[in-house]
Amino acid sequence: MREVAVIGVGMTKFGEVWNKSLRDLFTEAGMKALINANVSGSKINAMYVGSMSAGRFVGQEHIAPLVVDYAGLAETHIPATRIESACASGGIAFREACMTVASGMYDLVVAGGVEKMTDISGGEATETLATAADQEWEGFFGMTFPGLYALIATRHMHKYGTTPDQLAEVAVKNHANGCLNPNAHFRRKITAEQVLEATRVADPLGLLDCSPISDGAAAAVICPLKDAHKFVEKPIRVLASGQGTDTLALHERADICTMEATRYAAKAAFAQAGIKPKDVDLAEVHDCFTIAEITAIEDLGFVEKGKGGKATEDGMTRLDGEIPINTSGGLKAKGHPVGATGIGQVVELVEQLRGEAGKRQVSGAKRALAHNIGGSGASCVVHILEVPE
Amino acid sequence: MREVAVIGVGMTKFGEVWNKSLRDLFTEAGMKALINANVSGSKINAMYVGSMSAGRFVGQEHIAPLVVDYAGLAETHIPATRIESACASGGIAFREACMTVASGMYDLVVAGGVEKMTDISGGEATETLATAADQEWEGFFGMTFPGLYALIATRHMHKYGTTPDQLAEVAVKNHANGCLNPNAHFRRKITAEQVLEATRVADPLGLLDCSPISDGAAAAVICPLKDAHKFVEKPIRVLASGQGTDTLALHERADICTMEATRYAAKAAFAQAGIKPKDVDLAEVHDCFTIAEITAIEDLGFVEKGKGGKATEDGMTRLDGEIPINTSGGLKAKGHPVGATGIGQVVELVEQLRGEAGKRQVSGAKRALAHNIGGSGASCVVHILEVPE
Repeated sequence: MREVAVIGVGMTKFGEVWNKSLRDLFTEAGMKALINANVSGSKINAMYVGSMSAGRFVGQEHIAPLVVDYAGLAETHIPATRIESACASGGIAFREACMTVASGMYDLVVAGGVEKMTDISGGEATETLATAADQEWEGFFGMTFPGLYALIATRHMHKYGTTPDQLAEVAVKNHANGCLNPNAHFRRKITAEQVLEATRVADPLGLLDCSPISDGAAAAVICPLKDAHKFVEKPIRVLASGQGTDTLALHERADICTMEATRYAAKAAFAQAGIKPKDVDLAEVHDCFTIAEITAIEDLGFVEKGKGGKATEDGMTRLDGEIPINTSGGLKAKGHPVGATGIGQVVELVEQLRGEAGKRQVSGAKRALAHNIGGSGASCVVHILEVPE
Repeated sequence: MREVAVIGVGMTKFGEVWNKSLRDLFTEAGMKALINANVSGSKINAMYVGSMSAGRFVGQEHIAPLVVDYAGLAETHIPATRIESACASGGIAFREACMTVASGMYDLVVAGGVEKMTDISGGEATETLATAADQEWEGFFGMTFPGLYALIATRHMHKYGTTPDQLAEVAVKNHANGCLNPNAHFRRKITAEQVLEATRVADPLGLLDCSPISDGAAAAVICPLKDAHKFVEKPIRVLASGQGTDTLALHERADICTMEATRYAAKAAFAQAGIKPKDVDLAEVHDCFTIAEITAIEDLGFVEKGKGGKATEDGMTRLDGEIPINTSGGLKAKGHPVGATGIGQVVELVEQLRGEAGKRQVSGAKRALAHNIGGSGASCVVHILEVPE
């Protein structure tokens, strides 16, 4: 298998983008990525597109050929494939794209992700998101994602002594980071008091513990590492990719505080990379709810199981901490257009590793990890990127 | 890249399967494929699952981990990825699975496809299928697939003199083949008169020109060709795979009688295989409507453009013809559970190439082609399978 590099990234602003359609969004992100990679669209060999539920959000399935069409590339007739794995759709699309380049099958591939969520009501969007949970054992009985993560949070508090203040610190930190990101959905600081006093959504999670419903798209251009310098000065190597699954329903798991899909994917990625968690300089993790960031940093091995809350409280994951987490603002503040989220993480890491992250730059960042999960952890994909020597 | 083989196939009966859920269907097909391959589920490295719109048909997205879960393999945590490309979802899932084995990444992969379409009304199902067309330029204005294919049929008749009798012959032939297939949705012969006199759906297409709305699932087990004899006596080599795209909306195409995605995918597959259309002994093609089989055999190169109707009338594509087409009964009679269709085609070809197709066996079949399209031809995937020497 060949070594693979990201040579270009692009994204739209995440947020409630009422003046742009799904096709406008992904075309914008894709064009930005191509320009960033110094590549003409006509040179692209294939595309992978992550989207969770375009069929329900905007009444449009079959969006992979639509992406090629609206990028003005219909006459090339190149293969284009949509990946759906709930909120991990984007990350898995990136993985598939990397695999086809690594295998030697293609030389230049675009991985994109898109979701247009605000064309339907918030209630309908919540119901659509719930299709990522087990419809027969969870959704049918009225369970939605805030409820599922509230169960996890409650159990984590009971088992490890994690506190509401520690959860709140995740939101406070990610909003602080989001202020520094021009593409973030929310660019305002919040305080722990605001998080703790916000309207309850599903106790112990309040409104400010939850990531928003966002529109947005992101894209990345991938080629063999050996060819990357032909296009750009600062290619970023894709060092490793790991993917895992778990039961769809929470009640089937031995321990709902541990995401086994994350552990499996991370183990595969760290083994492929030949490094350990301590060798990672920063990470984008899947903070769809504040508790999700806590379990993620535990399951990825950045801290011991049960110590994620304390580590967060102690500032370990802040921009100036030992391992900055969600420098982009994360799903919480950057926004969470579900199918785009995994690629949005890659955009942030590439900008950080190139030293182009502006006010949120992690100084000397050489190696970074992206962690993207679907649903309440039934699917997970982990990527490790680094500055090539 | 390594050579790849199919070592096991399985499918449910296609039809209105009201006593089985989506998860029952794919579990049944997957178990049959594993048993057929003499493989334990615990040895599988990864899964790819094709499904067009489980989110709208049964309110369940995120079905790839669900497949692993309900196959009893959640504890393996293996990667599982859903592919969506409308009615080509199954064929592209098969392609992705083959690619990961060819690349050396995995040694044993299951490709599956599933759709449970009859839990909603026929009207709702038609509306959901229409999400595979261009929502903004076709679906929004009330266009559905019978209408789109009626435009193609009308133009084909005008341009090439194709007749209603020739279209009817496609349905008559495929129903005759379906009678010989225990898994077919329809197992009754029909006459040309019945096709011509059937209720009009979208002129010139009547009810019997249209494939049905079906439930069903199919699966295939894939491994490197060099290892295949460890599992089974008669592995089938995957000789080639090609994938292509085209504009989503019909009005953007220079010629609606030609599916450029098919031509692109076929060209790629024939080049990879190093053979010509005349070297193929039989084919399963995407006959979602009778006209679609006519354009398919033209675009695949089995007959000249414009001569598909005449060739069909002359018996070239019958079970005892020069190149038998849709020996399984095709989408028309075997049924069309959209996400499963592409894998269902592979099941038929593997049974034919093993000499296990019973009364519909094509004698001496050594090489066969599967052609699976999405929507009105915006995506297409072509596979060529053969008996290894």
